[in-house]
Amino acid sequence: MSDNLQEFSKLYTHRIENFISGYYKRKAGLNSSGILKKIYFDIEEYCLRPGKRIRPLLLLAAYAGYSQKQSENEMNEIIRLSSVLEIMHSFLLIHDDVIDKAVQRRGKESMHVIHNNRYRSITKSNTVGNDIAVITGDMMSFDCIEIIADTQIDAELKSDFLKTFSETYIYTTWGQILDIVNSLPIDLKKDSTLPYDISLYKTTYYTISNPLIMGYILSGGKDETEKESIRDFSLPLGLSFQFRDDLLGVFGKPDATGKSASSDIEEGKYTLLIDYALKNLTESERHEFETVFLKEAKSEDDICYIREVIEKTGARTSAEKRVMDLSRESLLKLENLNINDNIKSVLKDVIKQFSELK
Amino acid sequence: MSDNLQEFSKLYTHRIENFISGYYKRKAGLNSSGILKKIYFDIEEYCLRPGKRIRPLLLLAAYAGYSQKQSENEMNEIIRLSSVLEIMHSFLLIHDDVIDKAVQRRGKESMHVIHNNRYRSITKSNTVGNDIAVITGDMMSFDCIEIIADTQIDAELKSDFLKTFSETYIYTTWGQILDIVNSLPIDLKKDSTLPYDISLYKTTYYTISNPLIMGYILSGGKDETEKESIRDFSLPLGLSFQFRDDLLGVFGKPDATGKSASSDIEEGKYTLLIDYALKNLTESERHEFETVFLKEAKSEDDICYIREVIEKTGARTSAEKRVMDLSRESLLKLENLNINDNIKSVLKDVIKQFSELK
Repeated sequence: MSDNLQEFSKLYTHRIENFISGYYKRKAGLNSSGILKKIYFDIEEYCLRPGKRIRPLLLLAAYAGYSQKQSENEMNEIIRLSSVLEIMHSFLLIHDDVIDKAVQRRGKESMHVIHNNRYRSITKSNTVGNDIAVITGDMMSFDCIEIIADTQIDAELKSDFLKTFSETYIYTTWGQILDIVNSLPIDLKKDSTLPYDISLYKTTYYTISNPLIMGYILSGGKDETEKESIRDFSLPLGLSFQFRDDLLGVFGKPDATGKSASSDIEEGKYTLLIDYALKNLTESERHEFETVFLKEAKSEDDICYIREVIEKTGARTSAEKRVMDLSRESLLKLENLNINDNIKSVLKDVIKQFSELK
Repeated sequence: MSDNLQEFSKLYTHRIENFISGYYKRKAGLNSSGILKKIYFDIEEYCLRPGKRIRPLLLLAAYAGYSQKQSENEMNEIIRLSSVLEIMHSFLLIHDDVIDKAVQRRGKESMHVIHNNRYRSITKSNTVGNDIAVITGDMMSFDCIEIIADTQIDAELKSDFLKTFSETYIYTTWGQILDIVNSLPIDLKKDSTLPYDISLYKTTYYTISNPLIMGYILSGGKDETEKESIRDFSLPLGLSFQFRDDLLGVFGKPDATGKSASSDIEEGKYTLLIDYALKNLTESERHEFETVFLKEAKSEDDICYIREVIEKTGARTSAEKRVMDLSRESLLKLENLNINDNIKSVLKDVIKQFSELK
């Protein structure tokens, strides 16, 4: 993290985390059922696992960058709303992990594994972990609505916020559904806009443009042109983030990415990177590639072969170049935002972070 | 259904259903992805399967019963918000069916079965149906937030509504989690308040008191005493509904209840009815009962034996009497509500319906 972003993060991260911690500690305290108390403690622990808190920070950055003046009281309320984005993120990760059958999240047990371990021994149900994790996720989304309802800001503003809030997560579920279908081992001659659509819904809107727009709305911003400029800035940034993620998913060091460097390949995920590779293959090469790529269990050799194809077709180099181009494009488009210089510097650091290829 | 309820239902059910149908048809129309279009059509079909629409109707009843005057414009907005309760209900049923591995809902395929059938043949994933159903449910809850955000009512009123809305579904998930743990084949010497808690969260608040309170809030009601009277009225009504449901789940005719008359027994569900039976057994009888009740696969004989115990201990008679007592109690408490006479008659019919034991 570069200086400006780091400083901004230092200012706000602990306030976001304190709010989440306090909220769930209170929930646990108020609840007389031992079962539910434990669930609230689980949620608190889960939400507070180390993470960048990029979505709440972007909301706060936009709020701070567009506001004329901020009172400390108002800031407390905005912190609550920014924390909602982090709780929503955790909720979606919990459902995601059930779907992906992922046993770890942020270096610890995923939520369904926690519950499986807790209840499996006293029951014969082999889905009890999934069952409770799904409902726990649902509950967290209603917690978020409760937090929004209890936030002391102008009621009209809250209604506007709610509109973008709902849009954000509708898009995210679109991306999720497309991603589930896209991850299925069906033939690769797919609608080639699919990985772009997924990236748009699951990354650009979810992680970048909508958190920024929510912050803008909370600052009192009502200008549709400015919202359009935010979206325009977020598009290349989101795509850069996605290409980078795809590259790290194939060539990254597991230590840095926190996931296996071949997981995307193993799952046969039709990413933007794979789309690049496919476009540079002849019909027969493509056929051979598909046969290996769609295997359910891939050998070390298979994985090496796939990595080689991505290198030899130039897909890797093109994607790396694309990250750099998109990063430059975001920097240019950042200049169109009517946001203060301090926050511009923070966003420059975000651009930098989203294009680091190591 | 008795006359007043039937008439009220006739007035509003088609408006609720028209709103839901129009909303999802529009969503399908706006979406360019074939995959997502299909999902929206599925949701529309699912939400509009025959049902009593009791939750939206109760919201509307309270709104109509407490309002001084209603304009047609305002009524349109309230219809939207009442429809939200029906969409939320469908969303929760979708997640419920995944958890219960229920293949049917309202006489047709449950949502995960629809998706399993659609994608299973082209994939090797045996969870694809569950995966898409979980995310589809999530999406529907965000659709509800979108509908609330777009509803044209006073913004303060909306924020108040949102507070009770979130409380409703937080309670529902509490009930769900307790119910999952409660349905596990663990020993029956449980915390005996558990079936009462579950009934409170999953039935009384969810189906009765909170829809009524939401309607009261939307009518402009702010009196905490009146809300307390609504809760007070809903408690015996919810409990009566639950005892009736338990009785029908063991002794009901499958035609009338739409579910197998032994499903509660087969699942080994620790209901209020079972709680009654257990209290009237000696230690050794109880031990024998538990052994049979906790069997994973129960024979016809086992089921007959359990039914017999419920009869012989007097649990059936006590529960039936309880339904009648609770029904009378609700009728008395109804008199405490400052609601107009027309709606009082509608609610009397609801009480009647919730105590019919055939």
